[in-house]
Amino acid sequence: MNAIADDVAQLLDTAACAAREASAVLATAPRPQRDAALMAAAAALRARADLVIAANAADVEGAPGLSAAFRDRLLLNPARVEAMARAVEEVAALPDPVGRVLAEWTRPNGLLIRRVTQPLGVIGMIYESRPNVGADAAALCLKAGSAVILRGGSESTRSAAAIHGCMVEGLRAAGLPEAAVQIAPTADRAFVAAMLRAAGLIDLIIPRGGKGLVTRVQQEARVPVLAHAEGLCHTYIHEGADPAMARTILANAKMRRTGVCGATETLLIDSAIAPSLLPLLVEDLRALGCDFRADDRARAIVADLAPATEEDFRTEWLDAILSVKVVDGVGQALDHIRRFGSEHTEAIVTQDEAVATHFLNNLASAVGMWNASTQFCDGGEFGFGAEIGIATGRLHARGPVGPEQLCTWRYQVIGTGQTRP
Amino acid sequence: MNAIADDVAQLLDTAACAAREASAVLATAPRPQRDAALMAAAAALRARADLVIAANAADVEGAPGLSAAFRDRLLLNPARVEAMARAVEEVAALPDPVGRVLAEWTRPNGLLIRRVTQPLGVIGMIYESRPNVGADAAALCLKAGSAVILRGGSESTRSAAAIHGCMVEGLRAAGLPEAAVQIAPTADRAFVAAMLRAAGLIDLIIPRGGKGLVTRVQQEARVPVLAHAEGLCHTYIHEGADPAMARTILANAKMRRTGVCGATETLLIDSAIAPSLLPLLVEDLRALGCDFRADDRARAIVADLAPATEEDFRTEWLDAILSVKVVDGVGQALDHIRRFGSEHTEAIVTQDEAVATHFLNNLASAVGMWNASTQFCDGGEFGFGAEIGIATGRLHARGPVGPEQLCTWRYQVIGTGQTRP
Repeated sequence: MNAIADDVAQLLDTAACAAREASAVLATAPRPQRDAALMAAAAALRARADLVIAANAADVEGAPGLSAAFRDRLLLNPARVEAMARAVEEVAALPDPVGRVLAEWTRPNGLLIRRVTQPLGVIGMIYESRPNVGADAAALCLKAGSAVILRGGSESTRSAAAIHGCMVEGLRAAGLPEAAVQIAPTADRAFVAAMLRAAGLIDLIIPRGGKGLVTRVQQEARVPVLAHAEGLCHTYIHEGADPAMARTILANAKMRRTGVCGATETLLIDSAIAPSLLPLLVEDLRALGCDFRADDRARAIVADLAPATEEDFRTEWLDAILSVKVVDGVGQALDHIRRFGSEHTEAIVTQDEAVATHFLNNLASAVGMWNASTQFCDGGEFGFGAEIGIATGRLHARGPVGPEQLCTWRYQVIGTGQTRP
Repeated sequence: MNAIADDVAQLLDTAACAAREASAVLATAPRPQRDAALMAAAAALRARADLVIAANAADVEGAPGLSAAFRDRLLLNPARVEAMARAVEEVAALPDPVGRVLAEWTRPNGLLIRRVTQPLGVIGMIYESRPNVGADAAALCLKAGSAVILRGGSESTRSAAAIHGCMVEGLRAAGLPEAAVQIAPTADRAFVAAMLRAAGLIDLIIPRGGKGLVTRVQQEARVPVLAHAEGLCHTYIHEGADPAMARTILANAKMRRTGVCGATETLLIDSAIAPSLLPLLVEDLRALGCDFRADDRARAIVADLAPATEEDFRTEWLDAILSVKVVDGVGQALDHIRRFGSEHTEAIVTQDEAVATHFLNNLASAVGMWNASTQFCDGGEFGFGAEIGIATGRLHARGPVGPEQLCTWRYQVIGTGQTRP
């Protein structure tokens, strides 16, 4: 691996040490104080909305040749700034994830053992595109009692700085250390590399963005990573499905919003029900503007579907395109998911409880759904209030990552002088 | 990083794929089947005890020039083989950690959301010295529904193979895939490097051994690591301590067994109580054969203590040596722990509940104890039945790692056709 220039390494060290000191204060700051910082930050976002929007306009202007989709992700307008402020307030209203007793038991020798949640410490958030991710992440980390170092996309540095100023105003108003929320002090990409290697200084890295970013982070990081990777989600329509339910669920799962990670990318449909149902599903989705990539068996039922390659089944479209495969039963559906999925979210539509139970119990994915749209994979929909992303790895937390998942835990053991034999 | 020779990479690939397939079977194997495999493995260990001991004798003979301590760690005799078998049986008797509902709630839209435990998948266990660690690890992984690839120390390959044979006999007897428990097919160290890089094939690496091994694994691994690192544990005797309790706790915490990670390595003692109590503590520990490294303030109270360097306070002695520092109150004690500790286990001795609460709430360590010996940091003592090691990182699991901590969880969402607005 390349050596990191001394000056960048020094910048990381300074930032991380300041964050570590701030995290020690945050770890024991009472909930009202953390919430006060969030409410004050939200107020600052509103009071400085013009400044934030102006900074954002400079960012947009300074990045010519953006695609329409990219520009849309980058853009901040009054409605979006208001939504950002409101999201921060909603995080404040969430229950306190710190200091919760997860379990408690007494040993035969009288030792009382408690498992209690505590903040992780210092979180590094590396993200792309949407400036509000910075505000969301800062709010969630603060709620969960951790300090955060934010490194956003290089196209939105002015927006990130303006938003950061509002977060700092909130911290200041509440009497919390300003270093609890920092932004990367340099746009130099070497700073990201330094963050990834800062084991012991940073406790967790959360990458949120395109596949390229997440993959790079996973490959280079020495710090534990809570990765928000691909959402190659499946909806499996079992032969025992209620056809009307299958149609409404699939239309929503694919087309509610195609660019979210919880959008269904592949339809698996039992051969027993495909002849009658697949033409209707295709019609429904075509009316919504969806295109298809289908296997031969599906194309034998609906003639004018474009053929699917194996690569298509590995593709997270994030677009109005649906891969289609006809299968023979839940076993094959599970095999396909195991082979092509990203362990994000998979749904089965059926009235057969036994099959549904088998499906749910044989999935390794973070979320398994029965008779619901994959688009429900979202922190707000789960009742977490907000999320920093959807974790697709297997350790620590899975699915929507809210304040609770940004905490760790430790043991408190209360004795009366016991010694071990 | 060095390229891994093709043949070793191929061996890892083959082993990991076989483990992955086995893990899919294990993930839904009912508890009685997993327990039957464990009971049969224990029976095999007893039936083949002579073979295991003979293999071990060949290992010991084949490694001349071992220190007495190393030889003792390596050695298997009838009593130790019996203990190994009994430990496997005790794991079978533990509650099933798989399929437990951790939380369940219903959303306003009627969606029922459940958080349910499931096996991690494929675990890589890299360990040194004691052959029984292989049997313990295999038993715990199997109990937790995960496949395991074991790579033990190079001095104990024959012992490991003999033990592995017994585990496989157990799997066979229960009708479970033999690839659920594998040993490294080559002693080539490159196989370890391949394990560490097998992200996506191996889900978790657990290193257990000396500081050198654990550090190397943490530096090189791409796979998540549950590290069992240093146990630089502290016992802090607050001025409000009951002196008699302080004496019995410290003697046990330091001298019950000096080579365990939960042994206290540093005594912190309030200046208010040190003049009366420190001489008694020194006398107690000297009688047990303990030596000291003390700061100037301690040496001003007990004259003939050897002086401590700053490096001594960073040293996990794993021996009959205790570092001693006089402090002024719980804040200084916490500062010292934060600076020199390894986030393993720290204890406070006091009758003052407020101070004890403050101490426990301001610790980042995996285990905080009040009026108990740090030597209680152990899976058996916690009621987990067994442990694969003590996790000292901040993610996923902390402290003693039993079958429960070898599981992850996922969401099952039960709907009645809901779609997201």
